[in-house]
Amino acid sequence: MAKNKDKVQEITPMSEDFAQWYTDVILKTEMVDYAPVKGFMVIRPYGYAIWENIQSAYDKRFKETGHKNVYFPLLIPESLLQKEAEHVEGFAPEVAWVTHGGHERLAERLCVRPTSETIICSMYSKWLKSWRDLPYLYNQWCSVVRWEKSTRPFLRTSEFLWQEGHTLHETYDEAQAETLQMLDIYREVAEEHMAMPMIVGQKSESEKFAGAFATYTMEALMHDGKALQSGTSHNLGQHFTKAFDITFTGRNGELEHPFHTSWGVSTRLIGGLIMVHGDDNGLVLPPKIAPTQVVVIPIAQHKEGVLDKAYEIKKQLEEEFRVEIDASDEYSPGWKFNQWEMKGVPIRLEIGPRDIEKNQVVVARRDNGEKTTLSMDNLNKSIEELLEDIQQSLYNKALKMRQEKTFVAKNMEEFKEIIHDTPGFIKAMWCGDETCEAKIKEETKATIRCIPFAQEDLGTDECICCGKKSDDMVYFARAY
Amino acid sequence: MAKNKDKVQEITPMSEDFAQWYTDVILKTEMVDYAPVKGFMVIRPYGYAIWENIQSAYDKRFKETGHKNVYFPLLIPESLLQKEAEHVEGFAPEVAWVTHGGHERLAERLCVRPTSETIICSMYSKWLKSWRDLPYLYNQWCSVVRWEKSTRPFLRTSEFLWQEGHTLHETYDEAQAETLQMLDIYREVAEEHMAMPMIVGQKSESEKFAGAFATYTMEALMHDGKALQSGTSHNLGQHFTKAFDITFTGRNGELEHPFHTSWGVSTRLIGGLIMVHGDDNGLVLPPKIAPTQVVVIPIAQHKEGVLDKAYEIKKQLEEEFRVEIDASDEYSPGWKFNQWEMKGVPIRLEIGPRDIEKNQVVVARRDNGEKTTLSMDNLNKSIEELLEDIQQSLYNKALKMRQEKTFVAKNMEEFKEIIHDTPGFIKAMWCGDETCEAKIKEETKATIRCIPFAQEDLGTDECICCGKKSDDMVYFARAY
Repeated sequence: MAKNKDKVQEITPMSEDFAQWYTDVILKTEMVDYAPVKGFMVIRPYGYAIWENIQSAYDKRFKETGHKNVYFPLLIPESLLQKEAEHVEGFAPEVAWVTHGGHERLAERLCVRPTSETIICSMYSKWLKSWRDLPYLYNQWCSVVRWEKSTRPFLRTSEFLWQEGHTLHETYDEAQAETLQMLDIYREVAEEHMAMPMIVGQKSESEKFAGAFATYTMEALMHDGKALQSGTSHNLGQHFTKAFDITFTGRNGELEHPFHTSWGVSTRLIGGLIMVHGDDNGLVLPPKIAPTQVVVIPIAQHKEGVLDKAYEIKKQLEEEFRVEIDASDEYSPGWKFNQWEMKGVPIRLEIGPRDIEKNQVVVARRDNGEKTTLSMDNLNKSIEELLEDIQQSLYNKALKMRQEKTFVAKNMEEFKEIIHDTPGFIKAMWCGDETCEAKIKEETKATIRCIPFAQEDLGTDECICCGKKSDDMVYFARAY
Repeated sequence: MAKNKDKVQEITPMSEDFAQWYTDVILKTEMVDYAPVKGFMVIRPYGYAIWENIQSAYDKRFKETGHKNVYFPLLIPESLLQKEAEHVEGFAPEVAWVTHGGHERLAERLCVRPTSETIICSMYSKWLKSWRDLPYLYNQWCSVVRWEKSTRPFLRTSEFLWQEGHTLHETYDEAQAETLQMLDIYREVAEEHMAMPMIVGQKSESEKFAGAFATYTMEALMHDGKALQSGTSHNLGQHFTKAFDITFTGRNGELEHPFHTSWGVSTRLIGGLIMVHGDDNGLVLPPKIAPTQVVVIPIAQHKEGVLDKAYEIKKQLEEEFRVEIDASDEYSPGWKFNQWEMKGVPIRLEIGPRDIEKNQVVVARRDNGEKTTLSMDNLNKSIEELLEDIQQSLYNKALKMRQEKTFVAKNMEEFKEIIHDTPGFIKAMWCGDETCEAKIKEETKATIRCIPFAQEDLGTDECICCGKKSDDMVYFARAY
């Protein structure tokens, strides 16, 4: 007999405690768990399957744009890390050091890669000969370690999975075009697959990557009004190629330093996915990324023909979609509904004796809770359309949420009021001075998320902090 | 003008110096390079693309058999490593130790995973509750570090890429079935995709995994007559589940320890692929694994229509195959032929003005050097058949090579003669005593590769070493 426990594990409501809501969701859906070492995470099958879907969407676009995957070593000699001054300053405080191999102390400490510019540049300097070899368009999927004091699974962990692209180009313009192309691919996959609308733009000097000439970013807004830096693309200029003495014989026969980019997205995107779409019942997953797109739940499954029909439907849908069936007799249908809702599966199909009689299935949408019936004729086609609609609806909903949480501030008073009362993005003018940026951060904990490509006229050209004439509209927010 | 240099970089002939041949092949085809840290490798695009093809063939089979991917942390606390006695003894001498995070010394040393049984078991003990949760069928793709003194890219490196499956089962029989199932999947993909015939069987006690109840292996034979352990599957019994106190409530309501397996294949397979199929001209890649299956080379490409036709053919073939075109005007066709031969591309298509006139292409097979012509009509179909034939021929050729290098020895004199004159697999009887095994190893450097599932009657039942009555026929060989 089915147990009569319709309530699954409780999730703290978002409105009560957003951080606890997040923790409840990631642990209770079994996406992730805390590892024995503080700050590290274990990515469980449900979380990893989401990562595989994100990964494959990006990998496809990288390959379509001519990039090839490679693998560089995990361990980097300390001397290599130190070659680019800004870079070592930025990363040295947060790297893990290997000092012993087996029973022996190493002559030189090795760091577990926090990012791979240095080791990759050391190899590029060996390989590159001629302008004919360029561009180098390489990417690597791996894990990196950055010793973090305060961590949260997916959002900030001492180890995370990511990809890092590392390219070399003959000219500055080509490197800049690559930097922007990869940012656009980041945005495209985030928006089209993960249904996460993005603000794209350039980072301020103080927020850019250690060693970069310019850093570009895509920023998403979470339900709690905080921003999430979701992917960055760096034009590294010739900083590293000079430090690592990478040269090539140019078209005119002279030795030149190539121009260099790097770009990365990580498992942090999963954290964003959760906080953009989730609700008080748990996860809400966009169909393109959901490990399970449709779950079939038999009703009164002990009655003749029900299980057979449910499996038949599963089999038919599996030809095109990622489908699960929950035919366990341990739990009631109500319990199952809640369980699969919590896991964010886009569509639930219910099939019972009366549905079979009427040649129909009951369909429940996770995104808006709508429940309706569909004919079993042409079911695959109906499901396909429904998944497309859900995908688009989730994007629209997230965009609407962001728009509702995006404000304009013309002076610091307004700014502080917004940050306090209705956290979200704040559009404001900024003079470009780091002093103003630092002052705003100190007083409000809000940082400049980016100087967006899409500039707007806010009806003022005075810096929100010092009042000086400003050309740049920027997005401010408190951020993860 | 095309440069007149038909000879590409020289590769040392196999017969002259097999080790140098191997090194020449892997470096000159740009599969791999030496990293700044001794014993570590950089996997370049051509090598990594082969790994991606191997990986995807295995991953597909793992998922078809119900396994899910996960990710466990890179760093393992020393105390966890020490929980299973045989395991720590086996691995402690070869792990890399992290002692500092940022500027701080860690309270406990962390090892960079050499394999993940310990950290995975520590999590399993937290998660597992009931027999209903079983089996756990998880797999992880990652890199591992084992500090090695003597290394060779792909074959033995201080860091390598691999997958490690880790499963838990209710009963011993289920764990044993899983262990053998995964070994069979290893063999199947190695034989069907990589065209590498395998001997499968059980490892002797002295050769088994540190902490295993029983280890099973697949062994391939290289051109130089040495064996390569190519994948292992371990029935770990309850060794780890007891050490890590993993329990579940059984069907009878009592607490039980589950049974446990682990299994892995690694980038070592790429080394095997090279040494089974390669020849004096370089790599020979099986079509299913080759990053490029067909290369199109235009002849007299400055003549009108040639390049257009070559690109047209490329485009048509790309719908079904992995195709490259080499239309650079820097090198002569002869140089290109050698270059792509060295890279092991299964099929080369040549297309020149006369071919266009005759509505044909010239086709050269990498595996046997045969050169013929094919009509441009139904070219995709012809290429498909040709690739299938090449795939099968490579397997047959490798099997024939192995058979020719497999011998029977009935006494130590014969054994030593074979090892000296015609290295390869030696089938011989063995009493099961570790003393005999050690003595043979000391005198001949040959080890027991496995006790094969397919036992044969060698016409004697006396141990080759001590003469005692023996039940087991085993395979001996010198090995990588």
